[in-house]
Amino acid sequence: MDCIFCKIVNNEIDSYKLYEDDDCIAILDVFPNNIGHSLVIPKRHVQNIFELDDELAGKLIKVASKIANAIQKSLKPDGIHLLQNNNKGANQTVNHFHMHVIPRYFGDTVEIKWVNNKFDAEDFSSTLAKIKEYIQ
Amino acid sequence: MDCIFCKIVNNEIDSYKLYEDDDCIAILDVFPNNIGHSLVIPKRHVQNIFELDDELAGKLIKVASKIANAIQKSLKPDGIHLLQNNNKGANQTVNHFHMHVIPRYFGDTVEIKWVNNKFDAEDFSSTLAKIKEYIQ
Repeated sequence: MDCIFCKIVNNEIDSYKLYEDDDCIAILDVFPNNIGHSLVIPKRHVQNIFELDDELAGKLIKVASKIANAIQKSLKPDGIHLLQNNNKGANQTVNHFHMHVIPRYFGDTVEIKWVNNKFDAEDFSSTLAKIKEYIQ
Repeated sequence: MDCIFCKIVNNEIDSYKLYEDDDCIAILDVFPNNIGHSLVIPKRHVQNIFELDDELAGKLIKVASKIANAIQKSLKPDGIHLLQNNNKGANQTVNHFHMHVIPRYFGDTVEIKWVNNKFDAEDFSSTLAKIKEYIQ
């Protein structure tokens, strides 16, 4: 499979590796939003959250927390995002699950902002009903 | 404590509730980036990822995955972000941990974009060393 993250996991491509255990690695993102921007990646090729089982999800979030704590202590940013993108509409560019850990600084150029889209009570009620139908 | 999410957890304030178990709730965000934008919230008041223990983190990501799957099946967006903001520099506005599950559509107005900041090999190497010092 021609997957860049599988190649990094298998040490076929060099990376700035922060952490490794039996299930995951953490590396610096070489296309960072800010320096220190890191990625937590499962060793197993899993495309996205829809393919991820709960056990592996639990392991990944623990590593993401470990990396976020280390970034906070070492770089002392003004904030940190955990961000995980699924499918093209959410800017997923590598189809191997990865969780971004992104340090933020007041006044930086990172474009993760809030928009203020307006919806009415009917929108919320009908959407709630639609989603709930699929919650097991 | 005057925490809006604690009040929602305790049913002192109404919410569009998608899901509830012993440890977490999931609700629709009433200030959504897109309709269907949901929040997964621990019942216990935990400020951010730095205060979250691994066990509760594991429970929260499982619920986030459940909600992401239900949004995908019901609303059929072009993508979904999981996003969790820590501290003011990363736009955390309510100081009670919450994970956003945000449906995305091609051409929508959501401002979660990638910037292309450039750093050199020395930046990466020195940052790697700094962060690794704090990884347990």
